[in-house]
Amino acid sequence: MTSSRATLIQVAERAGVSLASTSRALHGSGASEAMVERVRAAAAELGYSPDVTGRSLRLRKTFQIAFAVADIGNPVYVEMMTAIHEVLAPHGYRVVVMTTGDTPASATELVRSLGSGFVDGMVLSPLRTDDGLVRAIKQAPVPVVVIGRSLGDQGIDSVSTDSADGIGQAVRHLLETGRRRIGFLNGPPDTTPGEARRRGFDAAASDPGSTAERVEVALAEDFTVAAGVAAAHRLLAGASDGGARLDAVVAANDLLAIGAIRAARELGLSVPEDVAVTGMDDTELGRVFQPSLTSVSLGSDERGRAAARIMLRLVDGDAGEPQTASVGPRLVVRESTAPAPARAAAPGGGAG
Amino acid sequence: MTSSRATLIQVAERAGVSLASTSRALHGSGASEAMVERVRAAAAELGYSPDVTGRSLRLRKTFQIAFAVADIGNPVYVEMMTAIHEVLAPHGYRVVVMTTGDTPASATELVRSLGSGFVDGMVLSPLRTDDGLVRAIKQAPVPVVVIGRSLGDQGIDSVSTDSADGIGQAVRHLLETGRRRIGFLNGPPDTTPGEARRRGFDAAASDPGSTAERVEVALAEDFTVAAGVAAAHRLLAGASDGGARLDAVVAANDLLAIGAIRAARELGLSVPEDVAVTGMDDTELGRVFQPSLTSVSLGSDERGRAAARIMLRLVDGDAGEPQTASVGPRLVVRESTAPAPARAAAPGGGAG
Repeated sequence: MTSSRATLIQVAERAGVSLASTSRALHGSGASEAMVERVRAAAAELGYSPDVTGRSLRLRKTFQIAFAVADIGNPVYVEMMTAIHEVLAPHGYRVVVMTTGDTPASATELVRSLGSGFVDGMVLSPLRTDDGLVRAIKQAPVPVVVIGRSLGDQGIDSVSTDSADGIGQAVRHLLETGRRRIGFLNGPPDTTPGEARRRGFDAAASDPGSTAERVEVALAEDFTVAAGVAAAHRLLAGASDGGARLDAVVAANDLLAIGAIRAARELGLSVPEDVAVTGMDDTELGRVFQPSLTSVSLGSDERGRAAARIMLRLVDGDAGEPQTASVGPRLVVRESTAPAPARAAAPGGGAG
Repeated sequence: MTSSRATLIQVAERAGVSLASTSRALHGSGASEAMVERVRAAAAELGYSPDVTGRSLRLRKTFQIAFAVADIGNPVYVEMMTAIHEVLAPHGYRVVVMTTGDTPASATELVRSLGSGFVDGMVLSPLRTDDGLVRAIKQAPVPVVVIGRSLGDQGIDSVSTDSADGIGQAVRHLLETGRRRIGFLNGPPDTTPGEARRRGFDAAASDPGSTAERVEVALAEDFTVAAGVAAAHRLLAGASDGGARLDAVVAANDLLAIGAIRAARELGLSVPEDVAVTGMDDTELGRVFQPSLTSVSLGSDERGRAAARIMLRLVDGDAGEPQTASVGPRLVVRESTAPAPARAAAPGGGAG
């Protein structure tokens, strides 16, 4: 599929006038009658379609920026959205939130829909990326900034984090606080976050200095609480068969961690007394949960702000080298990994 | 401000052709050269502006429907969005989520932005409604369906619920399970939900058959967990000064209820042993929370589906009488209101 920009360029070349004049002539603003005639003749010769005419309206600003994510129900995206909004709103932009779907194909279709010109740009956080999606992003008729994988080497503006290192921080914290049998509750490993987190866990588990006695892995069907409950049941029940029970679960995000706490409870296990649990993303949900959740912050608000600042430069016409930003992970320790004695002293621990 | 449709009609009248032909000619699809000439000449005579040309693109379908809510962070809207998506997706529509802001003025501005034609319709759940917003909705260039207040008498398609009755159900449940001193944790009472919930609490509290010994009210600044924590502190701490402590809190939504549980815990009180807590909206957050939250379901998914079905009829051109739908509230009892003896038998209650 030819991009609309290429087609508009072809019309401009055929008419022998600038792209700006072509756009003005086709949209009827500030072009002489002669210019309009000339450009329309070129457009007609090339069969420049009405759909493409519609698309080229993107040259007029909508003052809307799309934020497209796989799961609107994940609070981490709400925090990113709020941060993006805070950067863009003072410049007059509205944020519209969209779902990418789970597959690269659905995200690709969404990026292609940008041709209709309903937004001036898109901040995109896809769950899975393939060559087709990368190509669609590079050919997109409006700027696209990716939050997730670093795609600077592909010429794509992107904001990334090192969640593999974040998982390492969680594992080391658990070992340092005396846990020895660690279960890793990951989401689908063929996703961008699942792949990075698996890499981080594998590295931590194979560290020659590790004091871990056993590690196990369970994969949830997706990154939701419900999927976390189901997979954590397998992890915690399965482990109790062959030897000592797991005493810690490292979850790939806060929703899975809450699923793990729920599953532990359904199995009659206390968190953190019997099983410590860590999450990732440091969401408000984890902060208010009981027990409050130890979680690896991946700087969701910082990543949102960084993406929004790159977007502002792009919509202002800065077409320099692709811009990238990276935000480091940081472990935030709360109740869900407290050693048992400290837990007894926590407020509200049963005192009536 | 003249609507773009009126202007397009004027062009059609001047050219002496149908509105559909005018649209086709201006957008270049399926019109003869002669027709295009004629319509463009009429458009030029009337000074039909490029901006209006852009707007009239709404006559072409975008296959996008906006869902606009006050707080994307509230999981109740995620559940509504999912339900709307499930109804619209099989018909080829995408849902884009937007924020209304807190004021009628910001929601009015959003409704007016529909003139740019980026969506075919909007499902709108405003926090506050005034005459200006009602007028903007009635004049909107694309269909708008309101979830919240019933506005059928204003000629507006809308889906409502009876949250006042829902609060009554929560109060009666608490009294029936032996609670006697009830605090009402509401959000801002000048909002649509705040007004309805206050009405429901007032009716339940003034019921001559009520066994309540005392009722108190605290207002949170908004309908969020953080605001709930702050207001519940006042409610629970204040009450302990003058007489027996409150033994139950009725919260206006699940986020405030979770704030109340958090505040109770910070004050050394156990839920439900010392204080029972009810929420409203029956969100997944409340279902997975510990203790799981007794909550009044307002049928968020049913309301979303009803609004989406009305929208489908409207975007298909059904311009009959305004359509309204109503979904009844239903109390879902969980751990947060269990009488103390039942609580001791709950799974995971400290057994290790």
